[in-house]
Amino acid sequence: MVSWLSIPAKSHFSLINIPFGIITTPKSGVPVPAIAIGDYALDLSAFTKNGGFSHLPSFQAQADVFYQPTLNAFAALGRPVHRQVREYLQAIFKADTPFPDVLKDNEALQKEALLPLNSVTNHVPLQIGDYTDFYAGRNHAYNVGVLFRGPDNALQPNYNHLPVGYHGRASSIVVSGTPIVRPSGQILTNPTAAPKVPVFSPCKRLDIELEMAAFVSTGNKLGHPVPVEEAEDHIFGLVLMNDWSARDIQAWEYVPLGPFNSKNFATTISPWVVLIDALEPFRAQGLEPGNRDSILPYLREKRADNVFNIKLEFDIRPSGTSKEDAPIHVSETNATNLLFSFPQMLAHHTITGCNLRTGDLLASGTISGKEPGSQGSLLEQTNGGKEPITLADGKTKRAFLEDGDEVILRAVAGDVDGAYVGFGECVGRIESSCSARLRIALNLWGIPYNPIFVHLLKNEQCSDQYRALNPSLSVPVLVAHRASEDDLVIPQSIAALEYLEETVRSTSPQYRTLLPNDPALRAITRSLVSIIASDVQPITNLRSQRWIKELEADPVPYCRKATEAGLAAYEALASKVAGTFSVGDDITLADVCLVPATWSAARFGVDVQNYPTVARIVARIEEEEAVKKAHWRSQPDTPEEFRQT
Amino acid sequence: MVSWLSIPAKSHFSLINIPFGIITTPKSGVPVPAIAIGDYALDLSAFTKNGGFSHLPSFQAQADVFYQPTLNAFAALGRPVHRQVREYLQAIFKADTPFPDVLKDNEALQKEALLPLNSVTNHVPLQIGDYTDFYAGRNHAYNVGVLFRGPDNALQPNYNHLPVGYHGRASSIVVSGTPIVRPSGQILTNPTAAPKVPVFSPCKRLDIELEMAAFVSTGNKLGHPVPVEEAEDHIFGLVLMNDWSARDIQAWEYVPLGPFNSKNFATTISPWVVLIDALEPFRAQGLEPGNRDSILPYLREKRADNVFNIKLEFDIRPSGTSKEDAPIHVSETNATNLLFSFPQMLAHHTITGCNLRTGDLLASGTISGKEPGSQGSLLEQTNGGKEPITLADGKTKRAFLEDGDEVILRAVAGDVDGAYVGFGECVGRIESSCSARLRIALNLWGIPYNPIFVHLLKNEQCSDQYRALNPSLSVPVLVAHRASEDDLVIPQSIAALEYLEETVRSTSPQYRTLLPNDPALRAITRSLVSIIASDVQPITNLRSQRWIKELEADPVPYCRKATEAGLAAYEALASKVAGTFSVGDDITLADVCLVPATWSAARFGVDVQNYPTVARIVARIEEEEAVKKAHWRSQPDTPEEFRQT
Repeated sequence: MVSWLSIPAKSHFSLINIPFGIITTPKSGVPVPAIAIGDYALDLSAFTKNGGFSHLPSFQAQADVFYQPTLNAFAALGRPVHRQVREYLQAIFKADTPFPDVLKDNEALQKEALLPLNSVTNHVPLQIGDYTDFYAGRNHAYNVGVLFRGPDNALQPNYNHLPVGYHGRASSIVVSGTPIVRPSGQILTNPTAAPKVPVFSPCKRLDIELEMAAFVSTGNKLGHPVPVEEAEDHIFGLVLMNDWSARDIQAWEYVPLGPFNSKNFATTISPWVVLIDALEPFRAQGLEPGNRDSILPYLREKRADNVFNIKLEFDIRPSGTSKEDAPIHVSETNATNLLFSFPQMLAHHTITGCNLRTGDLLASGTISGKEPGSQGSLLEQTNGGKEPITLADGKTKRAFLEDGDEVILRAVAGDVDGAYVGFGECVGRIESSCSARLRIALNLWGIPYNPIFVHLLKNEQCSDQYRALNPSLSVPVLVAHRASEDDLVIPQSIAALEYLEETVRSTSPQYRTLLPNDPALRAITRSLVSIIASDVQPITNLRSQRWIKELEADPVPYCRKATEAGLAAYEALASKVAGTFSVGDDITLADVCLVPATWSAARFGVDVQNYPTVARIVARIEEEEAVKKAHWRSQPDTPEEFRQT
Repeated sequence: MVSWLSIPAKSHFSLINIPFGIITTPKSGVPVPAIAIGDYALDLSAFTKNGGFSHLPSFQAQADVFYQPTLNAFAALGRPVHRQVREYLQAIFKADTPFPDVLKDNEALQKEALLPLNSVTNHVPLQIGDYTDFYAGRNHAYNVGVLFRGPDNALQPNYNHLPVGYHGRASSIVVSGTPIVRPSGQILTNPTAAPKVPVFSPCKRLDIELEMAAFVSTGNKLGHPVPVEEAEDHIFGLVLMNDWSARDIQAWEYVPLGPFNSKNFATTISPWVVLIDALEPFRAQGLEPGNRDSILPYLREKRADNVFNIKLEFDIRPSGTSKEDAPIHVSETNATNLLFSFPQMLAHHTITGCNLRTGDLLASGTISGKEPGSQGSLLEQTNGGKEPITLADGKTKRAFLEDGDEVILRAVAGDVDGAYVGFGECVGRIESSCSARLRIALNLWGIPYNPIFVHLLKNEQCSDQYRALNPSLSVPVLVAHRASEDDLVIPQSIAALEYLEETVRSTSPQYRTLLPNDPALRAITRSLVSIIASDVQPITNLRSQRWIKELEADPVPYCRKATEAGLAAYEALASKVAGTFSVGDDITLADVCLVPATWSAARFGVDVQNYPTVARIVARIEEEEAVKKAHWRSQPDTPEEFRQT
């Protein structure tokens, strides 16, 4: 199939793919359905509005599904409609399209609806009701079982008989690109000690899980199981998934009711839903044929080739490297490494009568091969964290993920140029919140910046490379690129803010001062800054916590007291000068410092509501675009519901 | 507090309660918010529309939340608003109300908005995003642990440190009164045999779990944990919950990822949400004080009395007894039997940054006392099913629930007449689908009937009482009450249908014949009836399955073949005479028999789509009101989303 549109030969989004997603553009900001094709997204809302479906009369009456902010309405129309629409859109883009008037020869519509992929923002494509995570990657289950129970008892007795699964958390499913904040929770620092007493800590064994996931198109009624042969028609399509896992939190919490906090902080999916029909040419047999006799009849499929030949891989762009550096290849495997297919998972899910709804998501579980370098998690690749791997650059070592690591999953079917059916990327970067005050100010001033993350838990800031940049070994460090001079390195955030305050005046059109004009108020502002930046943050940061732990003490009560004292002091001072913000009615550096401090206060059990002025200001300042932008939860691609308070 | 409205002294819905729910009335059918007070529901939509909130100006601009079909919008307004509205509504109903014009002296509005409770239908009160089930009832966890691991290791090492919990299934949460279909799934008939090979079977160890659950009012942003001291303000109110559990399915599936199919078929909640403020007077200490030093600071509350003194109990109305018979008291306990409070569960849930949304539901886990007769599950009361209990009638025995058993949970705080804060009832009855063909016909003809359930798995149909009624020991049996004669007992469903066909003609205004007038078509119809009623149903019913198992064979492949043969025969015959329905364009007895047969076909792995005429007819006939009404999934109180296909 050849298109009149120029589609790169290696594109995941060839003419035989046509995956569906939800996008916004900088111009409108209204989420609309789209397809990806080559380096473009076709805005289906604009396409529909301009008569794009005029040659598909059977669908035209239903085409208002493309005016919805999610794909649920389209998905609910069922597989025959999806097939028809996909084939019609392929016809529109074919070089010898029978309908050249629609788009090929319609420059106005091309201009309106055909948008460069890198200009649009993706969103979670369907509103997800319930999310279920299975465990159907037998190599993964075996590898993990060997780690915990040895090779003889690696798989539980139920494993080959049913697709083991558990209910997951739907609310925290995010789209590719959303930064991932390292979760905190209860962990055992010495799992073999008795009695077992947990400590509260940031997760130290943060892992990825490479999975595929299926969106439900049409559901079933409560009490009506879906027969396995009908199950595939209830699937809208597949996405790639990273089921982030806090291994240390999981090890402590999961007996007897399964993973909970270790999984509920975030799950990332790729933005484009690849329809089952697009994957038809890539059918293959999984780890066992789908119709094997050893499973109960309700799981037995007619076909043996019930899964798909999809190449899977993941890379890591380690902390300390720039966005421009190529990521390092870690692992590659194939989606045939599944014991059960999605239709089998769906049939099993509903066998009790459980109802599925349009938009529900079913994930496969981690997919691993058997060979070294084909595992879908670091847990497996590093032998439970005991043998850190050296990444392909020959020097970076990883047992688990570090702050600033960016993980990139990729999935693609096919091996012929011009005919790939790919999923694009599923990306997430691990973030700590230490440098947020600087990010807020940079956003306020509209200064572009390239964040480079440094991993504190692992003392990465003590590396020679970092020491050369910042002898005080603290974060953040601002490296200001200057037009006619060498780069300026500023290793203290407050100093960096003052520098920016003084220089940005002449360079940024968005400049607004963050210090009051009145000298007295400037002094109060700087005092508030110090209360946070000197009296609270250095005491509660990770370095301080590590020191306290070296004394075999629990740092949390200590951090709590420091935070309470700091907020009480801030409250006392600010309550006298506050207007809309901490000092008067304009944002100042004090606000910029205050906000990130309250973000971490909750982790120490401090209730910001005890400080009414602080609470009011924080609530107000969090409405500012610059603040939202600095916090990953409110990146433009964070779905609407996460902004709910 | 005394009301001008007559409120029974023992009412759960006293003037100091004011719980919120969603109701429909037979007249309108549109779901609207309401409160329960005494024996009445106050329709808040009608109340608002008629200026009910005219004396609460601060709320009036927001009062359109009461025009919504769920309570989500009201819940999202936050606790201060809920408090204000509740207190205002109390003032409206007080004997010395300062606003008599609103309702007390307004007979027109009373007539429009004050509806007898027994005339309204309740619905799930909020749209539930995610549902989480905790395990905070330590006595229950201990009792279950003793059963599985003995008293020394009954509780896992993590148990006292964190509220253990798991993600549950939101889609299958139903409101009190919704019948519960016994689920089927994989079970081990002999758990100690090796190798372990499961069979497909209806659940044989169906249990209840008595729990409380909390609805989330205002959520939190992803990445922002809720401090434990703020957590209670994120709770809208509590309901009573029955977390139905398939113990045999659970035992086989739950290692290592927790319960899945064993819980996903249904969870029942009571319809009226009791606000936290209404429970304030009943604060009490749980199994440990909420501020004990032995838990990590993020879970430590300021107050010791962090749970509520709520009396809990459950009754069973055993199968074979009529709706009019009083249920039998089984167990009573108290909601103070919790190790962790809802605020602690909520704080733990979000400690990783997990976001909650308005309408999310958090359940406590089963609540049990320590004494005999105070357990919240049959598993505990019967020592794992080994020692069936004798119910309070002195004769009925139960290890687990039987088809036709109705379970009634109740919860109430307070011990002063006129000042109870209760939850009403949380009711569910276990249903098999055997008698559905009769129910469909009775509905088609508009004949009222009083179903009495007989438990087949336990051979209850062999009891002397039943033998006297129906010597053939099969179900269903129709007992027709006749005006001037003795009751007529008809022990065969087809005979019963023919009897009704012949007699109803003169008595039912809704009569329409279910047999064609043409003799040839009558014969075809009766043939189709026999294909199902003779060739399929008797082979695949429970009695037949039991017999096959007594041969140590797996009945499923057998049932599958019988079903496939029957449907193939039906297809061949019907494809020649079918119109809209199996025989021509009117519903006949054949359709009435066909539909329930296809309901069970899926359980044997039979794909109805292989029989295109059958599939088409079934899809069509399921749209009929009489059929919908016969299937529990479409009872009037089944929420809208379950009707989705």
